[in-house]
Amino acid sequence: MKLLSLARDLKRRKARERQRLFVAEGVRTVEALLDSTLTVRGALVARESRDDARTARLVQRCEGRRIPVEFVNETEFASAADTDAPQGVLALATIPRTAPEGLPAAGTVLVLDAVQDPGNVGTIIRSAAALGASVTIALPGTVDLWNAKVVRSAMGALFTHCVISLTWEETVGWLDRRNIPLWVADTHGEPLQVAVRTRPANVALVLANEGAGVSPRVAAAAARSVAIPMTAGSESLNVAVAAGILLYMLETGAP
Amino acid sequence: MKLLSLARDLKRRKARERQRLFVAEGVRTVEALLDSTLTVRGALVARESRDDARTARLVQRCEGRRIPVEFVNETEFASAADTDAPQGVLALATIPRTAPEGLPAAGTVLVLDAVQDPGNVGTIIRSAAALGASVTIALPGTVDLWNAKVVRSAMGALFTHCVISLTWEETVGWLDRRNIPLWVADTHGEPLQVAVRTRPANVALVLANEGAGVSPRVAAAAARSVAIPMTAGSESLNVAVAAGILLYMLETGAP
Repeated sequence: MKLLSLARDLKRRKARERQRLFVAEGVRTVEALLDSTLTVRGALVARESRDDARTARLVQRCEGRRIPVEFVNETEFASAADTDAPQGVLALATIPRTAPEGLPAAGTVLVLDAVQDPGNVGTIIRSAAALGASVTIALPGTVDLWNAKVVRSAMGALFTHCVISLTWEETVGWLDRRNIPLWVADTHGEPLQVAVRTRPANVALVLANEGAGVSPRVAAAAARSVAIPMTAGSESLNVAVAAGILLYMLETGAP
Repeated sequence: MKLLSLARDLKRRKARERQRLFVAEGVRTVEALLDSTLTVRGALVARESRDDARTARLVQRCEGRRIPVEFVNETEFASAADTDAPQGVLALATIPRTAPEGLPAAGTVLVLDAVQDPGNVGTIIRSAAALGASVTIALPGTVDLWNAKVVRSAMGALFTHCVISLTWEETVGWLDRRNIPLWVADTHGEPLQVAVRTRPANVALVLANEGAGVSPRVAAAAARSVAIPMTAGSESLNVAVAAGILLYMLETGAP
């Protein structure tokens, strides 16, 4: 299949799952992809962008590694792109295979329970990588981790940080076998700065859906519930901001 | 002027500044606006949305307060809306007038130096309100605080949290007169968790542009530079995530 039609096809989650491929769009994201250990299957470049210095270097790097590069016109590129103002370069790469048995079970595990906004999920993965979480688990209802906007918002973090999509049962089973307690972020929980003083070495932190909040099964399974104290009249923080504060405190704020 | 043409006009920053009006779009944002003390000048409702229960309540609340409501068709509404999938309700309100002399000078002051993404700026203002900053100052180069997407991303926080646009000279003058030291967030600074142990009662924290980083004049004026420690290989956090962690630590993490 030509790279252009493949890239267009990969806009659909079903196609990504069947082909085990995803699209990384934009100069900076493709640079990060080529810096990673992931297998790059090809690159699509708009002819109008080939004279751009950074894009030209990306094409050279691909050619040096015998990665196929396909040049298309601006309209064709736009049909495969996910952004409104494309930079004229995207790459197709293999989604890494991860099994629960292979997951690192140390430090902080992040669990996303039906977090739906792709920008939020990408930003959370960027924070998870930067702040030292060991793995991010996406539960059903969470946006596909290989969605083009998640990939872009993660700013390369998806290519190095370990992520996996699991069912609730698989997640609980894995945590039980590794003896990792579940904490949940909830506005009614104990203050975060108090909770971290007695954090165990390993902990799994659940972030709930932006609107619906903590689901009953997560609330029932959680060993502890932690809150970021807020001023009177404030309802909530953005979920990616809350994730950043929680991860920072779990990694750095614990004594 | 009819509300429809006024709302369309207010998409431009110059028109907002001239009219001292802004647009709040979406059910939840308009609810928060009506809950606030700001002066609401009118509401625009798509006829197709008037049967929605929450929208109908908003119309009732406006009528009870003699706020003009104008009903338009879906296409007209879309021409005034800022979102791709509008909820069919928006309101026009007066931008509050704030002078440097009237600013609260206590606790944490947030300073945005050319932060450009409206979603980031709205999210930062939401965090500033929730985590207890006293005021947010926007320096030149920062997106207009009354831009429709900033208003929406702030989730009502712009209607209660004190914000102001000032020049660099006005900002430095005000901080000097109030004896408030300037801290800057910078990846090369001292670790945040160490810095907060000796934080003064009042502090102004500068967040720099997403790409360019700290400007020379801010670096020269800053009393201290603080960093959020990151794992090797991570370049940066999203600016709204960094702002959340810094604000949380300044408000809650200090002894």
